Amino acid sequence: MRVPLTLQHFIDRAETVFHDRPAIIDEPDQPADPLDITYGEMARRARAIKAGLDELGIAPGERVGIVSHNAGRMFELFYSVPTSGRIYVPINFRLRPDEVQFIVEHSGCKVLLMDEELAPSLRSVYAKHKIVIGKESDEALLRFDKEHRPWEADEDAPAVINYTSGTTSNPKGVVQTHRSLWVNATTFAMHMGVTDRDVYLHTLPLFHCNGWGMGFSTTAFGVPQVMIRKIDGKEILNRVQQHGLTLACGAPAVWNMVLDAAAEWDGEVPGKDQMRLVVAGAAPPTRTIQRIMDDLGWEFNQIYGLTETSPLLTINRVRKEDLEKSSEEKAQLLSKAGAPALGVEMRVNESGEVLARSNVVLDRYWNNPDATDEALEGGWFHTGDGGSIDDHGYVTISDRKKDVIITGGENVSSIEVEDTIFTHPAVEEGAGIGVPDEKWGETIKALVVIKPGAECTAEDIIAVCKQRLAGYKAPTSVEFRDEIPRTATGKIQKFKLRQPYWENRERQVN
Amino acid sequence: MRVPLTLQHFIDRAETVFHDRPAIIDEPDQPADPLDITYGEMARRARAIKAGLDELGIAPGERVGIVSHNAGRMFELFYSVPTSGRIYVPINFRLRPDEVQFIVEHSGCKVLLMDEELAPSLRSVYAKHKIVIGKESDEALLRFDKEHRPWEADEDAPAVINYTSGTTSNPKGVVQTHRSLWVNATTFAMHMGVTDRDVYLHTLPLFHCNGWGMGFSTTAFGVPQVMIRKIDGKEILNRVQQHGLTLACGAPAVWNMVLDAAAEWDGEVPGKDQMRLVVAGAAPPTRTIQRIMDDLGWEFNQIYGLTETSPLLTINRVRKEDLEKSSEEKAQLLSKAGAPALGVEMRVNESGEVLARSNVVLDRYWNNPDATDEALEGGWFHTGDGGSIDDHGYVTISDRKKDVIITGGENVSSIEVEDTIFTHPAVEEGAGIGVPDEKWGETIKALVVIKPGAECTAEDIIAVCKQRLAGYKAPTSVEFRDEIPRTATGKIQKFKLRQPYWENRERQVN
Repeated sequence: MRVPLTLQHFIDRAETVFHDRPAIIDEPDQPADPLDITYGEMARRARAIKAGLDELGIAPGERVGIVSHNAGRMFELFYSVPTSGRIYVPINFRLRPDEVQFIVEHSGCKVLLMDEELAPSLRSVYAKHKIVIGKESDEALLRFDKEHRPWEADEDAPAVINYTSGTTSNPKGVVQTHRSLWVNATTFAMHMGVTDRDVYLHTLPLFHCNGWGMGFSTTAFGVPQVMIRKIDGKEILNRVQQHGLTLACGAPAVWNMVLDAAAEWDGEVPGKDQMRLVVAGAAPPTRTIQRIMDDLGWEFNQIYGLTETSPLLTINRVRKEDLEKSSEEKAQLLSKAGAPALGVEMRVNESGEVLARSNVVLDRYWNNPDATDEALEGGWFHTGDGGSIDDHGYVTISDRKKDVIITGGENVSSIEVEDTIFTHPAVEEGAGIGVPDEKWGETIKALVVIKPGAECTAEDIIAVCKQRLAGYKAPTSVEFRDEIPRTATGKIQKFKLRQPYWENRERQVN
Repeated sequence: MRVPLTLQHFIDRAETVFHDRPAIIDEPDQPADPLDITYGEMARRARAIKAGLDELGIAPGERVGIVSHNAGRMFELFYSVPTSGRIYVPINFRLRPDEVQFIVEHSGCKVLLMDEELAPSLRSVYAKHKIVIGKESDEALLRFDKEHRPWEADEDAPAVINYTSGTTSNPKGVVQTHRSLWVNATTFAMHMGVTDRDVYLHTLPLFHCNGWGMGFSTTAFGVPQVMIRKIDGKEILNRVQQHGLTLACGAPAVWNMVLDAAAEWDGEVPGKDQMRLVVAGAAPPTRTIQRIMDDLGWEFNQIYGLTETSPLLTINRVRKEDLEKSSEEKAQLLSKAGAPALGVEMRVNESGEVLARSNVVLDRYWNNPDATDEALEGGWFHTGDGGSIDDHGYVTISDRKKDVIITGGENVSSIEVEDTIFTHPAVEEGAGIGVPDEKWGETIKALVVIKPGAECTAEDIIAVCKQRLAGYKAPTSVEFRDEIPRTATGKIQKFKLRQPYWENRERQVN
């Protein structure tokens, strides 16, 4: 019997088996009305919101956007929007209004939901229905008295569009189907051993690859979803203690903050021998991995993937053979991206690029057939990352082929940075590169050649970027050069530019 | 990206990530050449067998049967036969030659593989290619020097046909697709927390619903598959100790034997706080569940399902809320069949029958459209079991609607038993029912009305059944009656016949 693999499965199981368990433990500082609900109430609200979207005239296949810090109301919509055949578009809350406008227009969002705190800054953004999350969205969307229209479930239907900064300055919309998200969530849960005894912290922004989808699998096990609006090391430790957390995913920068907070923590750091971390984005230094094990007593796991892969491609969890090794040796082993998850096939092509085939790979880029064809050329997804695969299938990412800088877990297109640097009238040539940074993994450095006779300071360059880009995309330092090396075809040689900053390191990415 | 969900995924991951780990720890008493191989060798052999089947002229879609005790060579064929588009037909080794012949003919097996020990008794069975497992099958099938023909993977292609004793005397062939087996194996692994630290014992016969499919998920984690040919309580304990076992599935009768052996074990029973058991078939008495926890210190889990459902429909694992309860209370809770696994929908219809919808449900019965239509009427699979569902979705099976007796984990059609009783010339009327049994869960009792003037003993009835049926299908006791109550339409009222034997019990099935 064929039953479509959809996100509905996860909330259905929670409602049937765990309806009296807390589903959302919302951020207490949630500006409008924190959502502390059980899975029974969550499932009931999800149905009521489907009816509300019907009433609002949002047809199946139409897009519903959201710009929000992590919040219960952002999470629950995964069980209303895609599970009624609509497409959910969670948007990075750090983007500037014109960047948000681009995504709203490009994806064709009919509805735009906005965090109360962010709404004022999004005043200039146009969408047919703009709704502030909280009381306003509850009033606009919850229709408990109405039956929602049934959806003929289709696992190949798009569930979400995740916009990502790619190699060009315009973000691309990664279309993921229900099937992709289902396979990602179940294999991820299987590899990480999710059980109904877990308590999950949403350290990962939900706009970022749907918080990687662990929230779906934990839903099926009736696991409380603890929300945190703004990342702060001490606040994370407080929540570990208060809620008995066991599981969290996040970028290395988050765990650096936690390590800093732990150093100043009074008494034993909470979560010892209980917390399992999953880290991805930029691989942390081996020393950080070891400190997570030694200083916190938390289990460290690394995965590798991209928004385009839902993201689970590889996983690195200590193997049975290595359980008795020292934390130093374990940290060394765990610094690799990991081995393919179930159902993932990986290889490295002639030019050293890592390729993948799996159900977790994107269906397509939204309205971008050229980019889709390029990414999926030959039936393999091209990660844009250079790397190698060892004798046990463990992938090591050594070089990012795409012009992407990952800072604090956020992808930044170096081309977008360069385009912006060029808007300063004194700039002759400019390049944006990622350089190693203790806190953020990488931070952005601008290399600039000034026009003969012109004048300009580092502060000027940074200011022009801050004015035109989301804050995290602006360089944190500037170096002036006489020239920037280029290839015969005129391409900037990023690899050469990066080299001096990464000397004596194994990889040229963090 | 859509990648077909097939059994190939499991062996591919094992080969990539765990090629140097032991895959099979075969039974030392394996008559011909025990198979102790790594996952690398297993994957290589799997390819060589595909080439061998090509050479033998077995086309994609054709059937390969096997009659064997559990053995490495029986297991490895799951990664050669279905993964080259052929259909694997594992046959109950307890069946008589004519029963095996029926299955070989009905499914159209071109090849029949036979355990060396069983081959002599199968001399009368005809198949185009009859091959004894061991050196003979290695010689006939392994073609390391040839490339096998590629198979265009299709998740909806039949992978196996599992013959089951149903409500009629002829067994029905349950067709399961790759997708069914994939979803069963991954959700099963997820719910049972399979990791690469596990060591798995095949207590469950591989012909019985493919050993329930746990062998596929453990393959993906590089878990050693420990084989046992014949079930013996002490031998199981020996293997737990010798191989550091952590996981096994089986019928309650198996664990009763282990409990008996543990009572006579010298020193501490091995596997304490390490072994996780999964039990299905006939639910064991609460007292047995408690003894498994108290006497062995093993984790007890119950699942419910049928060969028609791959089998995972429901799972009962101690919930977080109940972890601190007494073993008596836990045993009480664990005596239910459990809550729906991810992606399974269950309900009870007006007549009290338990229905299910899921990807694990059979595709169809082989060459039996009428039985298929009946079983899948209205888009739901009809389990044939009566039951109820509580407020948390936990299913309790209270009455087996189908005329099936489950004895020692084997399904026996009571109608088949009755048909055989009737072959005795002295019998006027006869019924076969399951009555409670400490060791086997249920055992078969024949109720017989003798023709006026005729004579016949209990031994005569048992003898005629043993002569015509596999041994486990013969009654173990006979009671002579003056009449057998029937409904107005002439149907035997099994429920009424069973009642006196099951008084003061919660359920009428074990």
